[in-house]
Amino acid sequence: MKQLVDSLAIFGGAPLFAEPRPIGQLAAPPVDEYLALLKQAFELRWLANGGPMVLGLERRLAEFHDTRHCIAVANAGLGIMMLLRLFAGNRSGEVIMPAFSFRGLPHFARWAGQQPRFCEVSVDTHTLDPRAVSEAIDSNVRAILAVCNCHSPGDIDGLSRVAAAQGIPILFDSVYAQGATYRGQVLGGFGAAEVYSLHATKLLNGFEGGYITTNNDDLAARLRWQREFCLPSIRPAGVAENENILGINAKLNELHAAMALLSLDHFDDIVAGNQQRFEAYAEVCSRLPGLRLVTAPETGERRNYALMIAETTPPWPLSRDQTVAFLRAEGAAISPYYSPALHRSNQDSRNLPMPELPVTNALASRFLQLPGGELVSLDDVRAIGRLLEFLVENGTVVASRLLERGIV
Amino acid sequence: MKQLVDSLAIFGGAPLFAEPRPIGQLAAPPVDEYLALLKQAFELRWLANGGPMVLGLERRLAEFHDTRHCIAVANAGLGIMMLLRLFAGNRSGEVIMPAFSFRGLPHFARWAGQQPRFCEVSVDTHTLDPRAVSEAIDSNVRAILAVCNCHSPGDIDGLSRVAAAQGIPILFDSVYAQGATYRGQVLGGFGAAEVYSLHATKLLNGFEGGYITTNNDDLAARLRWQREFCLPSIRPAGVAENENILGINAKLNELHAAMALLSLDHFDDIVAGNQQRFEAYAEVCSRLPGLRLVTAPETGERRNYALMIAETTPPWPLSRDQTVAFLRAEGAAISPYYSPALHRSNQDSRNLPMPELPVTNALASRFLQLPGGELVSLDDVRAIGRLLEFLVENGTVVASRLLERGIV
Repeated sequence: MKQLVDSLAIFGGAPLFAEPRPIGQLAAPPVDEYLALLKQAFELRWLANGGPMVLGLERRLAEFHDTRHCIAVANAGLGIMMLLRLFAGNRSGEVIMPAFSFRGLPHFARWAGQQPRFCEVSVDTHTLDPRAVSEAIDSNVRAILAVCNCHSPGDIDGLSRVAAAQGIPILFDSVYAQGATYRGQVLGGFGAAEVYSLHATKLLNGFEGGYITTNNDDLAARLRWQREFCLPSIRPAGVAENENILGINAKLNELHAAMALLSLDHFDDIVAGNQQRFEAYAEVCSRLPGLRLVTAPETGERRNYALMIAETTPPWPLSRDQTVAFLRAEGAAISPYYSPALHRSNQDSRNLPMPELPVTNALASRFLQLPGGELVSLDDVRAIGRLLEFLVENGTVVASRLLERGIV
Repeated sequence: MKQLVDSLAIFGGAPLFAEPRPIGQLAAPPVDEYLALLKQAFELRWLANGGPMVLGLERRLAEFHDTRHCIAVANAGLGIMMLLRLFAGNRSGEVIMPAFSFRGLPHFARWAGQQPRFCEVSVDTHTLDPRAVSEAIDSNVRAILAVCNCHSPGDIDGLSRVAAAQGIPILFDSVYAQGATYRGQVLGGFGAAEVYSLHATKLLNGFEGGYITTNNDDLAARLRWQREFCLPSIRPAGVAENENILGINAKLNELHAAMALLSLDHFDDIVAGNQQRFEAYAEVCSRLPGLRLVTAPETGERRNYALMIAETTPPWPLSRDQTVAFLRAEGAAISPYYSPALHRSNQDSRNLPMPELPVTNALASRFLQLPGGELVSLDDVRAIGRLLEFLVENGTVVASRLLERGIV
């Protein structure tokens, strides 16, 4: 417990956590269970393409998401690239997406021959605003890439209506909403397809990997062909030999599938652990004026509580970026949340004219992601709470000393 | 040993191999060695991004290939896509490549915003002919994608001279020439970069995976950034914030690196086993008029003997495609070799005008790939030899009965 401002790590004191606490889920099933499964795969000598564990994982995930199909892929980004190529029929064009989101999205669109068209989000859900999407659609738009958040999947019905009315395919990046429900229905079958990740930092840990869920049989057949180079020997029935589909190597293999299967067995426990941490943070924040934990609306929907997102507003003594610097120094490896917004990063705007997105700009300045996942205990959360209470008590001094050091 | 034409599997007899013999390398180190390495990775809880085994693998492969850099990637195809994007600076254009090659290549070029320009190969090496490449270069060409074969890396000097004279970057797909030498120098540092695979069917088995070798520091830094989404937090020194590089998820992880490291320990044994099988096939072919095993020129260069490629010419009693059907029925999972040529497949030509490539066309009709790799014993090779001798003795009868069944 820190007693002096000088003992804060950012001013040279020892950090609260000698071993930094991460923000990713990093769930790991018992290592021996995993190694036993791998041994089976070795004995079968079937480790790479379409083995029994990949097929089993696809079957179980389709059940989990209540969809007709699950197509395992090497990672979620490749899944998005594949879908955007298919939706655009390889014509160049634009993809509508939020600017308040993951930095990879505009890159994936460009790989698929598309330019990103950044669109405004709703202040409540932080997801695409259907009215803004409707206004942005013109003849260049080939697809809508909507992102479902951890605390809210967004206005899925509103977005789906806009997409249907304009005849534009809509794809949901539901990586952060794994296991969540919308109007009582588990996510997976909304839009033309949904994409999920199996990266170690995500809810279901396959070390790396991803998958696509869909109820569209034709789309599923094309995706299965596409992820394996569009090899002529496995061309699906109903797809013409010269149909313009770009093949890629996006196969998942048995090593990843085995891990993801075990992770799926523990899914409820993982979410329960997340909820406990979430409630501990909520308790902490209730004593911290100006730090608000972003919560799901109380609608009876299922959430996974994977991300601990907090909002800094007055009278919080520090700016968001100061808070990030302050906590990182203490070994709490937090990050600003979706900041800078994509339309304002030099990397994505590349000096091109970009839209004004006032809600996005405001959101991008206020949120941060606190440590979470399996490597963060409830005691860790309470220790972070005590540290932040100390910060509040000494807010004026800390803020001015940070300013002196040029940390704004 | 078959005694009657009726006992041949294609006419309803029992197959020679109840368990089909594959064509891939499928080398597997002792399972317990692998599981012990994985246990280490679990204990470190560092399984996904840039862990110690990936770094160790990159270091050892750079030594193996005598290059300054090795950049591990999720698979070789993604490596080619990344390089072609970088070489083209994201401008659309064309990539020169052979039509007598792997079906994935034109797809990878298209993902990178390029159209394939198929070029003629040399009748001796089956690799790009430098004169044809020189004639094909115009202002639309962004890169040359040359492919090194198992039995010959091709005219690397000639191709490099053409590329340098025209200022076009040249990339070698050296997947099949892993461990081979050219003028006494191990492959790895030729051209702007070389690409290799770690798929289970290739010489070094990482289950799946690939890597890029290069001596170019700037290119290596960009590739490392590119394979991890071009995340702003890891932007390399010397790369501008708004430099037009497309990020992707092409990270390799510890599971694959551990396996590839073990495979690398056994590299010399793997090649020695291949050479034994190769010599057994050479012995077999010496008794089979019209079936020629494709051999490396006797130049003292190192080869890996991974692929067993045979050429059918008169007086061989069957066509190449009849021979493929005949052997597949017997459980010898052979395949035609690079056939049909890419410019003649409906998938790649898509009804567009394509060049005349007479050497390519001739080669694509004559070769087949025989079973090889760890799951094929010397006894298997000799059994295939006896079967083929029986075929030669009964060639006229077998050929006419195949024709009756419409197998040409």
